[in-house]
Amino acid sequence: MRTSIATVSVSGTLPEKLAAIAAAGFDGVEIFENDLLACSLPPEEVRLRAADLGLSIDLYQPFRDFEAMPAADLRRAEHKFQVMERLGADTLLVCSNVSPAAIDDDALAAAQLRSLAERAAEHGIRVAYEALAWGRHVDDYLHAWRIVRLADHPNLGTCLDSFHILSRGSDPIGIEAIPGEKIFFLQLADAPLLAMDVLQWSRHYRCFPGQGGFDLAGLVGNVLNAGYTGPLSLEVFNDHFRQADAARTARDGRRSLIALQQALDRAAHPAVPTGYAFAELSDTGAGLTGTATGTDTGIGLATGTGSLRDVLAALGFARAGSHPSKPVELWQQGEARLLLNATGDDPALISLGLDTPDPARAVEHAGALLSPVLPRERAPQEAPLDAVAAPDGTEIFFCGTEWRGDFTPPGTTERHGDPLPGGTATGSITHIDHVALTQPWHHFDEAALFYRSVLGLRPQESLELPDPYGLLRSMAMSTAPGASTAPGTSTAPAMPAASTALGMPAVPGMPAVPGTSAASGPGAAGGSTDRVLRLVLNLARVGAGDVPWQHVALACDDLLATARRLRAEHPELLLPIPGNYYDDLEARHDVDPCLRELGVLYDRDADGEFLHLYTVTLGRVFFEIVQRIGGYRGYGAVNAPIRLAAQHAGGHRTP
Amino acid sequence: MRTSIATVSVSGTLPEKLAAIAAAGFDGVEIFENDLLACSLPPEEVRLRAADLGLSIDLYQPFRDFEAMPAADLRRAEHKFQVMERLGADTLLVCSNVSPAAIDDDALAAAQLRSLAERAAEHGIRVAYEALAWGRHVDDYLHAWRIVRLADHPNLGTCLDSFHILSRGSDPIGIEAIPGEKIFFLQLADAPLLAMDVLQWSRHYRCFPGQGGFDLAGLVGNVLNAGYTGPLSLEVFNDHFRQADAARTARDGRRSLIALQQALDRAAHPAVPTGYAFAELSDTGAGLTGTATGTDTGIGLATGTGSLRDVLAALGFARAGSHPSKPVELWQQGEARLLLNATGDDPALISLGLDTPDPARAVEHAGALLSPVLPRERAPQEAPLDAVAAPDGTEIFFCGTEWRGDFTPPGTTERHGDPLPGGTATGSITHIDHVALTQPWHHFDEAALFYRSVLGLRPQESLELPDPYGLLRSMAMSTAPGASTAPGTSTAPAMPAASTALGMPAVPGMPAVPGTSAASGPGAAGGSTDRVLRLVLNLARVGAGDVPWQHVALACDDLLATARRLRAEHPELLLPIPGNYYDDLEARHDVDPCLRELGVLYDRDADGEFLHLYTVTLGRVFFEIVQRIGGYRGYGAVNAPIRLAAQHAGGHRTP
Repeated sequence: MRTSIATVSVSGTLPEKLAAIAAAGFDGVEIFENDLLACSLPPEEVRLRAADLGLSIDLYQPFRDFEAMPAADLRRAEHKFQVMERLGADTLLVCSNVSPAAIDDDALAAAQLRSLAERAAEHGIRVAYEALAWGRHVDDYLHAWRIVRLADHPNLGTCLDSFHILSRGSDPIGIEAIPGEKIFFLQLADAPLLAMDVLQWSRHYRCFPGQGGFDLAGLVGNVLNAGYTGPLSLEVFNDHFRQADAARTARDGRRSLIALQQALDRAAHPAVPTGYAFAELSDTGAGLTGTATGTDTGIGLATGTGSLRDVLAALGFARAGSHPSKPVELWQQGEARLLLNATGDDPALISLGLDTPDPARAVEHAGALLSPVLPRERAPQEAPLDAVAAPDGTEIFFCGTEWRGDFTPPGTTERHGDPLPGGTATGSITHIDHVALTQPWHHFDEAALFYRSVLGLRPQESLELPDPYGLLRSMAMSTAPGASTAPGTSTAPAMPAASTALGMPAVPGMPAVPGTSAASGPGAAGGSTDRVLRLVLNLARVGAGDVPWQHVALACDDLLATARRLRAEHPELLLPIPGNYYDDLEARHDVDPCLRELGVLYDRDADGEFLHLYTVTLGRVFFEIVQRIGGYRGYGAVNAPIRLAAQHAGGHRTP
Repeated sequence: MRTSIATVSVSGTLPEKLAAIAAAGFDGVEIFENDLLACSLPPEEVRLRAADLGLSIDLYQPFRDFEAMPAADLRRAEHKFQVMERLGADTLLVCSNVSPAAIDDDALAAAQLRSLAERAAEHGIRVAYEALAWGRHVDDYLHAWRIVRLADHPNLGTCLDSFHILSRGSDPIGIEAIPGEKIFFLQLADAPLLAMDVLQWSRHYRCFPGQGGFDLAGLVGNVLNAGYTGPLSLEVFNDHFRQADAARTARDGRRSLIALQQALDRAAHPAVPTGYAFAELSDTGAGLTGTATGTDTGIGLATGTGSLRDVLAALGFARAGSHPSKPVELWQQGEARLLLNATGDDPALISLGLDTPDPARAVEHAGALLSPVLPRERAPQEAPLDAVAAPDGTEIFFCGTEWRGDFTPPGTTERHGDPLPGGTATGSITHIDHVALTQPWHHFDEAALFYRSVLGLRPQESLELPDPYGLLRSMAMSTAPGASTAPGTSTAPAMPAASTALGMPAVPGMPAVPGTSAASGPGAAGGSTDRVLRLVLNLARVGAGDVPWQHVALACDDLLATARRLRAEHPELLLPIPGNYYDDLEARHDVDPCLRELGVLYDRDADGEFLHLYTVTLGRVFFEIVQRIGGYRGYGAVNAPIRLAAQHAGGHRTP
């Protein structure tokens, strides 16, 4: 189907908007009138500009407060028809009247709209009448259609807007009562499910399909069943999109329509990842020669000068191999694999390897969703690795198991550095439970859509976490339900289809991620797996100059034993937890006093229990060690404020 | 009355919060439990810390989901009483149950609260029961009081919270039915009037009294009539306050309570300013020797290299004097006076002089409201000038007319530079209509309260203005109604008491300024004047690195003549307005075609018409020239997006 987007959906001047929209591959645009009014180019030049870019002008909008008035203002309409002729736009959006002067009289509305359509016809223009969700007398799409039918003019049809329909809770199946040729236009917007004034919800919190909580695929299915053949057009009013880079927003919008099309085609995600193959961390390289560069207190993590290798060794990881052509080491414990890449930078997560049933198809799917596929330099003997860039720059590798063969086992002579001894992993860590990435505040929705559509993850829970210097927002995502929580542990029940919807901004200005209906996402058709891939997206605080912490959470079989060993051998590695936390924990639950002694945090839900602890932070990275007992589904978010306060106390205040 | 504040209201760790709260002069604190849990100090040390700072611990809060349960959890309560004893807190806040397990049974609730009070009594602790606006069965303050009376225990009373009462639309007069000694605590928060889920409204958008739309003075009056003798305590959950500097937020909170106290005392504002005495602009000093430093195109304003003097001369201002001891010139036209201060900086507004009936009292009033009173260096013969610093650093001078005598008339030998000729003002500019200042996004509420309480201005209208790169928020404020719009023009009707309440964030994360009831503000008692002081506060975009444009709007008697002259003599000075704007204007109104020709913008409201034009920008500053016809009350905001787009097109994109 043809794709279109309203110019109001992206930032910039009108020429900048058109260029960004064309570059993203849209077929057409809706010209939002205010964008034209503020533009120094006359309509004729805008028309040429669009034509040069290969964009059709599918709609001119909006024309307000026209119908059901004491007197129809055809003079104003005539001016607009002239502008549209100069612009080369053949369809005018008329939205239902919000004026206090409007009369509740369908016959009058129909008669005036008919007059408008007659005038429009003289200019070769069609009028598409749309019910605003907050229209004074007409706020329902079927009511608008009733008036259009009453007016009965070939140049008058209806415009459907998913937000106006779904925000009111109207059932879109009624769309199938409208003849397809009378649906002149279809505007699409998703939105988080918020309990707020619908006008403000619409003006500030709309987002692209798949970023919110509406079932867009269902509605579009109804529209197609009705026989609509026009474009799928995005019309999004969003405070962040207004500020964001236009090219990036436009590409994100196109991605949302591609994912929507896949959902309409009921295309199963071809290759939902089943778990983490590895997480790759950049490192200063300190310690690559085996010499710890810690401070007097030992490893000196609090100041970010320590070595990731020392931390991994302390956690019981062993060096399992070195890359022959890159300064990269593989460290392993159980099925948890971490790559240390001596880039010379402070520790940060730079890539994620995902166990993927069909890596080639996964990368093709990602590319179809406009993800930048990364060129890989590799030696002839090395395994192919397909990778794309996530919105925050993290590289996502789709892997089988061949990549492990690229790493030379310890003891062998290596190209970089001296040969190092290997050693045996000693802890009870079994695999990577989840990874938490922090997103720049203005790219959170883009990231959520990326992970949802490209990886087939589903939003799981969205939370607000206070720390001493602000509120953070955190959204967990995971692969489809029906999976066990982890290899070697008991089978968990299916994860909930809908997450906890907090429903409002967690951080100034952030629209909350919805309790998204899992059924509507492109990942809904993803194949079931026997592993769960869990990812947490944290939102960097608005106004914070830099993106703070990331972490890798490592699952283990016996957290208390691990904690006991760490406390005995490397107490400087453990993030200290205040005694006041345990006073409260013991008031709430009858817990083992050893939790306090060991600095282990605790949570429980209806299905199980959760034990976890944190290391101090190195560069941007810290580690969490977790143990899921029974079918616990969460991430210990209730304890995150305690962790954040302790991290800030350690001198890691975010900018 | 004693003042207190909940630790959740300001940012930081608990020790940081306590220090900031003490520094602002509060008498006590409410310890928000989460702040204690995340704190590494044990309760005993927190107690000592507070005592050292001279702060009493007035409340420990909140204890949740206790009453009306199948079984009362006295074990959990006992743990909390022990913590409170260690902390030295003698009152526990119990908020009404939100658990799905709670039973709708007042007798059960009363019985369980009585048991709790009995246990509390053993520890010398009092229990204050509060109705949350979203409590499961108890959401009204009178309902909570009914249960407290039913429980009938001396250690059980009620806690009143202005947000929970006023957000539900409850009439606070019922408070007078509660015996004062049973009101154990009073929590105060204001909030903008938003149509949204009350829980989210409470958690993100609360603000200090006078920053929102509630009648706090009325409610506190009811509480005092009931006989309450405890502290006035602020409890504010606000996304910005969580991020802002704690000392600044605490001082702002204290200011709000001082202003509230003034309102309770029905104290008239002692010296509401009547108009602008001057606006002072910093300047590079270029042109101070009389040589324009423009580019080839003349004055070269678009690149910020021109001279303010050249612009003022072009606008018809004449140099009316020089300061004998500072590099400051007075430029004048009609009653519009501008000071150019050759600081060497790019043009920016650095101070405002306000015509004030009693400058000494005005500065005393400002100082009582915790405004920093500025020390002034002045020569013995110079007029005294009393000044305070506004939150954004702008200096506010309270003036009579004596200050003008400090300026040496032109032609006299001056200390700085050569003597310059004076000249005669030639235009039809009569006075300063308004000044627009741009506030950093996280200090907007503070600024609004400052101008409201310190200057006695009232919020007039709050708008959202889209520009090509985001939404801006703009709030107009002015002196009390009953004034004429300007000297020499016809008398305008009284300004509306309530402004247009958009009701939702205009910029990501910004709570909207409410359609504040003029009756509730501390400025409400301000004396009426025969002049209007108008001020517009614009909100800098979230994430923008720097604070952009400020402007001075100059009123004139004949805008078309002024525009005609400027277009003939200095076309490079005028901000170009696109033809598309006039296509739309002519569709909406039957306007004189000369507007298009002259680049003049137009608006009308029910009471009159508005003509205006803009100059290009110099440094951070541009000028607007306006003509109010009839009783037009606005600021031409409908045209602001056109202006903003034109400014961006001129290369003035905000960072």
